[in-house]
Amino acid sequence: MANTEPATVTNKQIIFPDYVSGFPKESDLKVTTTTIDLRLPERSKSVLVKNLYLSCDPYMRICMGEPEPLSSSLFPPYNTGEPIVGLGVSKVIDSRHPDYKKGDLLWGIVGWEEYSVITLSPYSHFKIHYTDVPLSYYTGLLGMPGMTAYAGFYEICSPKKGETVFVSAASGAVGQLVGQFAKLMGCYVIGSAGSKEKVDLLKTTFGFDDAFNYKEESDLNAALKRYFPEGIDIYFENVGGKMLDAVLINMKLNGRIAVCGMISQYNLVDPDGVYNLVTILYKRIKVQGFAVSDFYDKYSKFLDFVLPYVREGKITYIEDITEGLESGPSALLGLFHGKNVGKQLFVVARE
Amino acid sequence: MANTEPATVTNKQIIFPDYVSGFPKESDLKVTTTTIDLRLPERSKSVLVKNLYLSCDPYMRICMGEPEPLSSSLFPPYNTGEPIVGLGVSKVIDSRHPDYKKGDLLWGIVGWEEYSVITLSPYSHFKIHYTDVPLSYYTGLLGMPGMTAYAGFYEICSPKKGETVFVSAASGAVGQLVGQFAKLMGCYVIGSAGSKEKVDLLKTTFGFDDAFNYKEESDLNAALKRYFPEGIDIYFENVGGKMLDAVLINMKLNGRIAVCGMISQYNLVDPDGVYNLVTILYKRIKVQGFAVSDFYDKYSKFLDFVLPYVREGKITYIEDITEGLESGPSALLGLFHGKNVGKQLFVVARE
Repeated sequence: MANTEPATVTNKQIIFPDYVSGFPKESDLKVTTTTIDLRLPERSKSVLVKNLYLSCDPYMRICMGEPEPLSSSLFPPYNTGEPIVGLGVSKVIDSRHPDYKKGDLLWGIVGWEEYSVITLSPYSHFKIHYTDVPLSYYTGLLGMPGMTAYAGFYEICSPKKGETVFVSAASGAVGQLVGQFAKLMGCYVIGSAGSKEKVDLLKTTFGFDDAFNYKEESDLNAALKRYFPEGIDIYFENVGGKMLDAVLINMKLNGRIAVCGMISQYNLVDPDGVYNLVTILYKRIKVQGFAVSDFYDKYSKFLDFVLPYVREGKITYIEDITEGLESGPSALLGLFHGKNVGKQLFVVARE
Repeated sequence: MANTEPATVTNKQIIFPDYVSGFPKESDLKVTTTTIDLRLPERSKSVLVKNLYLSCDPYMRICMGEPEPLSSSLFPPYNTGEPIVGLGVSKVIDSRHPDYKKGDLLWGIVGWEEYSVITLSPYSHFKIHYTDVPLSYYTGLLGMPGMTAYAGFYEICSPKKGETVFVSAASGAVGQLVGQFAKLMGCYVIGSAGSKEKVDLLKTTFGFDDAFNYKEESDLNAALKRYFPEGIDIYFENVGGKMLDAVLINMKLNGRIAVCGMISQYNLVDPDGVYNLVTILYKRIKVQGFAVSDFYDKYSKFLDFVLPYVREGKITYIEDITEGLESGPSALLGLFHGKNVGKQLFVVARE
């Protein structure tokens, strides 16, 4: 069959020039243009995709840091001089892999570029079967962040009806879902976020029992005591630092803390001290770091669980979408200043 | 049957006058003498015991602090003006409880005094059935610290053969057992302690693969890197603070930290900051506080496990025993300056 696309096209990319210390700047990422042959060589086992939506996720900051033992294992550092790597929703242009054919949709790990050649690997790429929901949801609700919320809340936190749940960065890609899952479970759930707009979203759109703007609380401990006079059973940790410290002294006996992220710490050269760890002993608390990649065997179970709620409008998802590959760097860096309202992503192409 | 003991005898006690801040001093505990009737009233359901060995345990410092939400749940504060409460080995003098008769031995919660009237409660008091081992062991190896080491290591740490294990306060009541359990499991185990004498004990008597004096290490991170070039799978936490901070950056992926104690922090008005918590995320570490009281249903299983090793000399236990009730306060406070070598206890009476 004749390929109607030209053999070789330009391929715009966002390059990662060098490792970053402190808060990254837009100038730390470079837009460049190269070319790509849209036909895979005969012997290839890869898939060539056109990237439609690319995802901005806080963990990406960890991959931008100097390689060091601290961060090496779960978050491999980016290769300097190569495109940023992240999650995206993509359309197959050419395939030498038996599971994919031209026109198929997938989500998973791709470069920040218009076209990517993907070496498929299990749990790094997932074929998209349901297109009656917005495709962009596969960067969020139906992708890694959704699976993170699902695994972190149900598997790590072992929630029970009636328990009290606190979610930080609660309007973000993961937090907004954790809150909604907690309500479905019959928990009492409070969220924190960094603006009035986000706090309103939590209370009105996502159905949190209450929410507060952490920037307006001079004493986080006092704020938590106000919202949780009896203490916190479950803390879904997205921020770290001072918030974690305040949460620790407000945990209940046998409390659980799922460590999903610590966005307040990724850009600090000197991380914040946490002083109240002795409560882990006093209250026999479990603090558990987890990686969504350990739970992808439950991905289809997750879709079976969540899709009906989405279709019935019982789970809502708010996205913050910018336009064009060039908007990626500023969208990504905005995460670390709390600029995003909801899941941050950008459109590279609509089809 | 005529009771040969006099009806009323003097009863020396160690009284807890008031809550303590910072390092307690000997003058914070008072010796007093009262009297006690050695015959229980007819309607009593209690047991009257003569205390033989009383135990000094680090958690007792927590009970000496001002009552506050932080510490209230697992470690109830002492009542001011009453005797210190702790664990001991005692002999029954009179009993109105069907499970105990005069002459029986038990271990469990008693006052720091010569004679105590005990209201028995499950998992607070245990009858002693095996007397072919030193009775004092029921304050340590065969009592709460032994059960703590057993539950903490096997249940919380989920050890596997060949894993690397680090134990702090490793020559203490719990640590010396954790190290020996780890060797029985086929782990590689390193201990830290605060003197050359203790470090020698770890290497020669308890069979640790190696050990170091933390007071001689200006850089704990570097010390841990030297002993664990590949990282730590399991950390049995007894000290907290700076050691925990250094351990965190040396943990391996999927590492487990059992939080048994944080003795370095109990006397601090301002606790140490811990800065490396982001590794909980990066290495998906589990940090789990636990209370031995949740595991006492396994106590007889523990005895079946440990007694044969003790009788065959395959598990060793070192005790630091002082003489007389009056020696209790200084023995207890010595714990917080690392004066004890092995399990600290004192003799009130030998029979």
